[in-house]
Amino acid sequence: MHKMTFKTPLAIAVATASLGLCGVANADTTMEERFAELEARIAAAEQRAEAAERRAELAEQGRGAAPASSAPAAATTDADIEERLARVERQASGEEGFSFNVYARSGLLIGEDGKSAPGGPYLTPAGGNGGAVGRLGNEPDTYSEAILNYRMQFDNGAKARYTTMLAHGTNSSNDWVGDDTNLNVRQVYAEFSDLPSFTGAFENASIWAGKRFDRNNFDIHWLDSDVVFLAGTGGGVYDVQLAENWKTNFSLYGRSFSDYPVVNRENPGLDGENSDTDNLVLTSNNYFGNWQVMVNGMSAVDNDERDIGVGQTAADTGWHTMVAYHGDSFFGMGEGNFKAAVLHGQGLGAEVKGLGSNGDLTDDASTTRLAVYGTTYVAPKWRIAPAILAETSDDRFASGDSYDWATLNVRLANEINQNFEMQYEASYQWMDFKPQGYSDRNAVDGDYMKFTIAPTFKPEVGGFWKRPEIRLFTPIATGMRA
Amino acid sequence: MHKMTFKTPLAIAVATASLGLCGVANADTTMEERFAELEARIAAAEQRAEAAERRAELAEQGRGAAPASSAPAAATTDADIEERLARVERQASGEEGFSFNVYARSGLLIGEDGKSAPGGPYLTPAGGNGGAVGRLGNEPDTYSEAILNYRMQFDNGAKARYTTMLAHGTNSSNDWVGDDTNLNVRQVYAEFSDLPSFTGAFENASIWAGKRFDRNNFDIHWLDSDVVFLAGTGGGVYDVQLAENWKTNFSLYGRSFSDYPVVNRENPGLDGENSDTDNLVLTSNNYFGNWQVMVNGMSAVDNDERDIGVGQTAADTGWHTMVAYHGDSFFGMGEGNFKAAVLHGQGLGAEVKGLGSNGDLTDDASTTRLAVYGTTYVAPKWRIAPAILAETSDDRFASGDSYDWATLNVRLANEINQNFEMQYEASYQWMDFKPQGYSDRNAVDGDYMKFTIAPTFKPEVGGFWKRPEIRLFTPIATGMRA
Amino acid sequence: MHKMTFKTPLAIAVATASLGLCGVANADTTMEERFAELEARIAAAEQRAEAAERRAELAEQGRGAAPASSAPAAATTDADIEERLARVERQASGEEGFSFNVYARSGLLIGEDGKSAPGGPYLTPAGGNGGAVGRLGNEPDTYSEAILNYRMQFDNGAKARYTTMLAHGTNSSNDWVGDDTNLNVRQVYAEFSDLPSFTGAFENASIWAGKRFDRNNFDIHWLDSDVVFLAGTGGGVYDVQLAENWKTNFSLYGRSFSDYPVVNRENPGLDGENSDTDNLVLTSNNYFGNWQVMVNGMSAVDNDERDIGVGQTAADTGWHTMVAYHGDSFFGMGEGNFKAAVLHGQGLGAEVKGLGSNGDLTDDASTTRLAVYGTTYVAPKWRIAPAILAETSDDRFASGDSYDWATLNVRLANEINQNFEMQYEASYQWMDFKPQGYSDRNAVDGDYMKFTIAPTFKPEVGGFWKRPEIRLFTPIATGMRA
Repeated sequence: MHKMTFKTPLAIAVATASLGLCGVANADTTMEERFAELEARIAAAEQRAEAAERRAELAEQGRGAAPASSAPAAATTDADIEERLARVERQASGEEGFSFNVYARSGLLIGEDGKSAPGGPYLTPAGGNGGAVGRLGNEPDTYSEAILNYRMQFDNGAKARYTTMLAHGTNSSNDWVGDDTNLNVRQVYAEFSDLPSFTGAFENASIWAGKRFDRNNFDIHWLDSDVVFLAGTGGGVYDVQLAENWKTNFSLYGRSFSDYPVVNRENPGLDGENSDTDNLVLTSNNYFGNWQVMVNGMSAVDNDERDIGVGQTAADTGWHTMVAYHGDSFFGMGEGNFKAAVLHGQGLGAEVKGLGSNGDLTDDASTTRLAVYGTTYVAPKWRIAPAILAETSDDRFASGDSYDWATLNVRLANEINQNFEMQYEASYQWMDFKPQGYSDRNAVDGDYMKFTIAPTFKPEVGGFWKRPEIRLFTPIATGMRA
Repeated sequence: MHKMTFKTPLAIAVATASLGLCGVANADTTMEERFAELEARIAAAEQRAEAAERRAELAEQGRGAAPASSAPAAATTDADIEERLARVERQASGEEGFSFNVYARSGLLIGEDGKSAPGGPYLTPAGGNGGAVGRLGNEPDTYSEAILNYRMQFDNGAKARYTTMLAHGTNSSNDWVGDDTNLNVRQVYAEFSDLPSFTGAFENASIWAGKRFDRNNFDIHWLDSDVVFLAGTGGGVYDVQLAENWKTNFSLYGRSFSDYPVVNRENPGLDGENSDTDNLVLTSNNYFGNWQVMVNGMSAVDNDERDIGVGQTAADTGWHTMVAYHGDSFFGMGEGNFKAAVLHGQGLGAEVKGLGSNGDLTDDASTTRLAVYGTTYVAPKWRIAPAILAETSDDRFASGDSYDWATLNVRLANEINQNFEMQYEASYQWMDFKPQGYSDRNAVDGDYMKFTIAPTFKPEVGGFWKRPEIRLFTPIATGMRA
Repeated sequence: MHKMTFKTPLAIAVATASLGLCGVANADTTMEERFAELEARIAAAEQRAEAAERRAELAEQGRGAAPASSAPAAATTDADIEERLARVERQASGEEGFSFNVYARSGLLIGEDGKSAPGGPYLTPAGGNGGAVGRLGNEPDTYSEAILNYRMQFDNGAKARYTTMLAHGTNSSNDWVGDDTNLNVRQVYAEFSDLPSFTGAFENASIWAGKRFDRNNFDIHWLDSDVVFLAGTGGGVYDVQLAENWKTNFSLYGRSFSDYPVVNRENPGLDGENSDTDNLVLTSNNYFGNWQVMVNGMSAVDNDERDIGVGQTAADTGWHTMVAYHGDSFFGMGEGNFKAAVLHGQGLGAEVKGLGSNGDLTDDASTTRLAVYGTTYVAPKWRIAPAILAETSDDRFASGDSYDWATLNVRLANEINQNFEMQYEASYQWMDFKPQGYSDRNAVDGDYMKFTIAPTFKPEVGGFWKRPEIRLFTPIATGMRA
């Protein structure tokens, strides 16, 4: 077995910004809360206005001097102001018209030699197969997403939302990077809800079409890894209520496989032409209380003609399933939350996270992945967030190959004052890869560990999800042993 | 004559989204209406406030206990609230400050082989010369436009608007397409109106400069084809009132001809160098009631040195005219609307739709195009929209060539309930091309037809222009015979 | 010495738009003013509401008929409306939530031959070393910046701002330029202020991280040249109050030097490999009243291995300093303002404007630059703005080289009416370059002059900073003599 040399790319302290201002869900929650508060105030205001009205009337009745017609008129004035104010509140909050969400991270990761250090959660050999390590002090790039929403409310009560997401990523620290800018429109879609003609099981359903990230994707934030990530172009329906405790969602997504080499049938062993196809993914997410059951089938016509190495046949179909639990406590042991998921896929489904994104899988490929994380306060001012991500797969890219890895990650935060906390992260990853010669890969059997301290500034501390934050960080020790 | 083989690329049902949320004109109308409504309410509220004031005063006069100074003060309070509310309403509606418009379509077009099918309104051999066929169920790409406006109102009454449009198009279904993203800033311009020093014929005129789509462009939506499309970088003036029934507009647009081959004078027949020039388009649109008369002259210095084939001379000047009628009924036969236009151009003007966009035209090129469409309800819940687009041209790219084609398109929609309608589209196109060897093109004499059924969801049905919508579609039959 | 031939590329009149709608500072000022005004009104409204309350109570006490509980309730209603209105005002003004700033210019510059003329403030041989000439009638490109901000206010009083800037530039007049579009995300950063735990010298400090233009950059608008421009990825702190009259700022910026050739040590004289490094810039800006003192140190590890020519060693460190005065009069002679700065740098600091942006400097490079400009009214309706930019440098790119140049620029504007002014600009530039063979450059000893008249439309005249504006322009004379 090939042994890798031991690397200790000790990095020194520099600043990074990781901000997730107002993710869509967050923003909605905040706005929702604020709006509920406003609603309560409005109701109170109306009651009081009515009381004041009665009072004025009483005062006037005593005198008998006021014209009768002005009393209801005055009431309407307040109602008008109320209505106008409510409308601009909806517009200002993004419930109607334009709204903006943003995610961004940008940092400078300088190694002890004074130059940019290689980094990122996928920097170990396991990274190529999804084996993320902890992201604290480990992201050298600038990546940002700007999400532009436009919401409409119709007279019949129907709502429509149009969303477009502009994303970009670069490893350059410069402000102008020319053609290297990697700007992408990752999402453009429309979604309708509250349709008055949708009744019965469809009463609360919404429908969508376009290019998007599936609504039901979720991630382990500390590893910068989705648990499941489905994205592409298609359409579907969300929130069909099949039974009192069963909500289901259906979508069809297309993904493009482009410009891959095809086996040369006339001269096997020589290069053939390149070809394209579409990987169609039919997906259904089902929610039973806290449980989520996802099933996916996929088909990529003629992908079995893809040249993935002598003696291997690429998959042209696949299936995939995930069972997940979304817990609203810290594993039943205290306040906090946790999520746990087991994923399994075969053929094209054997890329279990990025559904349908890999066309190089063999028709025998089989992968199983486990993902668990939770967050809680272990003491006042001390938060902890442990996470596990582990995978085993066989016959993935070549007959008889195997890729096994497991990551254990713990993030600890100590809130010092309103604007400052110390964050600590320890990551351990074990890996054992037997690629059987695929793509000139070497076998690897080793492990990796990393320990990072990050003094962190926040506008307001108090929870793992509070953003934005600005960090300095000092990887104390990182090491790869193989 | 070369005969093409008969193709029947039968496509099967998949989802698409076609949304045109709030085109600038639409948005303004809606906002205008909403604002007028608000104005009326404000006036009513003020009357009522005054009445309430008088009433309180009467009550107090009876008692003689209130300080005199507080009465006008209270009136000002309401006026202040009113003023503040009016201002945030203007800001929320985009009348002042930022506003956002969007156009997007995104779909998945899968053929019966289970792979992406070729598509688009310009998929027939006539497409290269502008011969669009119906777009229903025929657009495989993701294309979106995000329009960011910033409006300012000055103390002297003047208004300024700054508009930038970010557009992108891709045939990939993936969310991340890397460098292939085709993002473009298609418009960046400023427009001033309500200038107090503009009087007389210029009283309602507005001026602009920058890069833009001309304001007076218009299209046949069902063919995804503009009737006339002028865009580039320049400046001009809109809405000069020359007589009671005559409004005129003047602009100068520049367009870049880049990196085209030049005739090698020393060694005719061998490749020469590449060159650049500018096609300057002087344009004037004139409105007389429902009639529009457009005249254009254009000049591209040294474009006659362009190498477009042995024995041909490329045009370095051109002219173009369009006479159009914008009808506010369905051809005088009922409610609805229609538009009809005849366009003719010579030399560089012989690209009659995309004005000034083609530098390969010969100096003898001559093109005439007819465009007609209308929409009406033929019965309650049944809308129809027929359209004709036809063109004849001679000496276009080579001496003696001819390109003749005609498209007939009918869209029918049956509104089933508040959120659902069935759409049907039939397209027929005839074409006869004699390219005389230009660019290795073959002669084509044939026709094409297409019939499509599209179950369509909308937040609110009721009219061809209501957007957004989400469609499933089933091309029942398409065929090319040549 | 090599003599250049005399060129007179006389250009003729065409339109351009130069708009700087609402630069961040501008926008803030305007919003600030408007908000202060609103605050005053709100205070007045509250006083009046209270007075009206007392008054109603007095009226009722006379009658003894009103329930006691409704009086404070009515007061709260107004306070509620007030609070809600204040919140939507903050949102509409961009103080909370989304706001948008924009800078754009777009123009058509046609020479007397009827084709696009070369242009831009850096078109002379001095341009490559920062020797800008006047920009009036001299910018042939379309360049725009769209700045998307998202501001948050936290319960503890802290504020956070997230800013992303999308910029693009092109010389093409076409609306669709394909892959040539040059879209860049030039800024993505977060900034926190009003942090309650920041006290003492840090009480008014703000901290930031990400990719940005440094806040303390400033420019000479008429030359389209920054006096100092520092941008990159990093983090820092602004507005630390070290003494009553001393505010300081610290930041660390990284910049990427990419893909430069390295000296081939084994075969000197032959090409070596390419390499990358980071130029780290530690910067501190200090303000003492109107004085600004900036000091910068920089380090780019291994940049001394860069191949910049036989016998030269590239700098791997550098330092830079600037002393500037920000005057609030026209050089003490009247109303207006002026700025004056002297910059000096050595090694990597010898690129004195674009800090840290050039890795080709020798380790002996030494540059000194002077920048001065002012604006005032010389008579009612007549504004003047003179500017000087001059530089001398030695051993810049090769041992013994020297680059000396000086630009004198005067802009004059005559306000004709509310929407129109005549602008005049005269530029003179002298240059003397002895490149000592660096990069095949020729020695140049000559001068350049330009005189331009630009009829200019504005929504509201009155000051050099009023934007947007639309110009026609006629360079009367330009000439290069060398």
